[in-house]
Amino acid sequence: MVTSNAAAKASSETIESLGENESLRRTISRLNHGDFELVGPGDDAAVIRAESGSFVVTTDTLVQDHDFKLGWSSWFDLGWKAVASNLADVAAMGARPTVLVVALVAPASTLVTDLEAFADGLREACLALSPGCAVVGGDLASGSQVVISVTAHGDLEGRQSVLRSGAQPGDVLAVAGTLGKAACGLDLLLSENADAISAWDELVDVQRRPQPPLGQGIVATESRATAMLDVSDGLAKDASRIARASGVDIVIEASQLFGFEAVLEGAAQSLSLANPHLVELGKPNLAAEDYCRKWVLTGGEDHSLLVTFPADTALPRGFKRIGLVRAATAEPTAYLATTVAGQQSETPVTDLGWDSVRG
Amino acid sequence: MVTSNAAAKASSETIESLGENESLRRTISRLNHGDFELVGPGDDAAVIRAESGSFVVTTDTLVQDHDFKLGWSSWFDLGWKAVASNLADVAAMGARPTVLVVALVAPASTLVTDLEAFADGLREACLALSPGCAVVGGDLASGSQVVISVTAHGDLEGRQSVLRSGAQPGDVLAVAGTLGKAACGLDLLLSENADAISAWDELVDVQRRPQPPLGQGIVATESRATAMLDVSDGLAKDASRIARASGVDIVIEASQLFGFEAVLEGAAQSLSLANPHLVELGKPNLAAEDYCRKWVLTGGEDHSLLVTFPADTALPRGFKRIGLVRAATAEPTAYLATTVAGQQSETPVTDLGWDSVRG
Repeated sequence: MVTSNAAAKASSETIESLGENESLRRTISRLNHGDFELVGPGDDAAVIRAESGSFVVTTDTLVQDHDFKLGWSSWFDLGWKAVASNLADVAAMGARPTVLVVALVAPASTLVTDLEAFADGLREACLALSPGCAVVGGDLASGSQVVISVTAHGDLEGRQSVLRSGAQPGDVLAVAGTLGKAACGLDLLLSENADAISAWDELVDVQRRPQPPLGQGIVATESRATAMLDVSDGLAKDASRIARASGVDIVIEASQLFGFEAVLEGAAQSLSLANPHLVELGKPNLAAEDYCRKWVLTGGEDHSLLVTFPADTALPRGFKRIGLVRAATAEPTAYLATTVAGQQSETPVTDLGWDSVRG
Repeated sequence: MVTSNAAAKASSETIESLGENESLRRTISRLNHGDFELVGPGDDAAVIRAESGSFVVTTDTLVQDHDFKLGWSSWFDLGWKAVASNLADVAAMGARPTVLVVALVAPASTLVTDLEAFADGLREACLALSPGCAVVGGDLASGSQVVISVTAHGDLEGRQSVLRSGAQPGDVLAVAGTLGKAACGLDLLLSENADAISAWDELVDVQRRPQPPLGQGIVATESRATAMLDVSDGLAKDASRIARASGVDIVIEASQLFGFEAVLEGAAQSLSLANPHLVELGKPNLAAEDYCRKWVLTGGEDHSLLVTFPADTALPRGFKRIGLVRAATAEPTAYLATTVAGQQSETPVTDLGWDSVRG
């Protein structure tokens, strides 16, 4: 009886009842130790190895009801996603992820068991996506809404960083990883169609726990990538970013996207039948093929790597060619090139995609 | 007329009407360039010099209505405070601050001019408190409540980091910077007593724009400091942290705090007259001297440096001795030692101070 009372007490403890220090202690004890910490969590700051003489740093925030819903993602999922989305930015520079710090704001009534599950998600994502990488510091505060701010670091190990601005006319455009799966998973969740969600749980899982191909960032860098980023706001918008930063046009070839679209078709068919929930939400009632196109072109949360390579580079394993880079004719722009009845046409796609303020 | 229309338009623009990218561009253009960035803002990540082969990293969050109120602090103040509080953690390791990244969550209706003022505060605090240091990356998202998450970095430049765990029996306890001013400023704001707020605006300013003595962190390290932290949750609580981490007792000598208390006495007298607002807020109606003691002992936001030095060290300029370290008699604890009628007594002060979850 003592045991079950103790268990009941443990499961009802909140971060308020436990306080910041003890809540953090419980959480930190679940984290893995990485390969790069000289001084780990618990002091004013951590001290991190940067033997190559520089480090890469990026920050990103997930906000409740904007970037996730607690009904759709577990706390484990949130920890995982926070790690995955930030390490993708590190990888997209050509760096090896080393350490993360995580600032969590949550209501005072949040259960400590939820916080522990969050820490488990942080740990498991590090171990699965980038072994050697670990969370070395954090902060916990109470607020009205869950906000997860992560800062991720990496080491270029002597490699030159790959920026968005290096794409050259003549380069090929390639992608490593999936496109559109996370966005499809989100529309499945929005549909509230339990049968479809269960049938396509692999796609919903990409929304909840993305698995960006982090190691491919180093591979691309070693294969002379000229520009690289992770697709966080959608292929169209992120390709436009490379176009603008590099002063070039980028042409995405619709015919090269068919493979990405094909794997989403079953889910699209489930949703394109009149779906009252999506219509209520103001979403257009799309045909299946239009869903697939939309997800692949504007869905960002797979965090795949979008890379330009010189035309004479043999694409490294895991990269698929999806377009090309050419000199800008006017304002640097990304286009989608489609061929209908033998006639090629191009549509600018710059403004499609996600804006983290406007949604 | 064109000009005033343009001005009116500019002043009514919100982060929602402008979108994430343009809002960020406007903000970033106001930041200073630091001495440590190899790749600055605008890509997936920044690349930062770390020539000594390691870096120091810490993260901290300010949450609206928990850590600040928008009615009491301007957006400039918030930017300043976010920088100051984080750089204090870097300095408390013995490191020189190098770069910061800032993640801001704000309501979509936030004015872009507010965002610009926030950026101005970030810049001015860097320039004033640690020249050469700069913000090199950020993230902007919308949410119900303003949340400012900052991650700060520093370089030990070959020095050994000074942890909380190195205090030795026989060491002296010393502080660089002010104690209690920020807490006094907060009580002045809480009192809503406009005359007192105006009379003691220097103290209110410390609450809004703390000026931690960052350079003293390096000075302390070079003077063989054995333990160091910045006072963020109050002298009592933070001294207890050193005690626990080092396995020692720390004795704060009340007689050494008189100087810190004296400068708060005028403000305390203004507040200790029956103050309906503070009483409504459930605050005790303290005598002036009790206010002073409370502020100095439990007020944290001055972000001064609390340091232990070996007994044979000549205290460096700017440090004031306030106590000593001795072997722990039982559980390591911080005590306040007072002398009344020639009789010394000690009170444990471990649990006094701020908890960022509970308040």
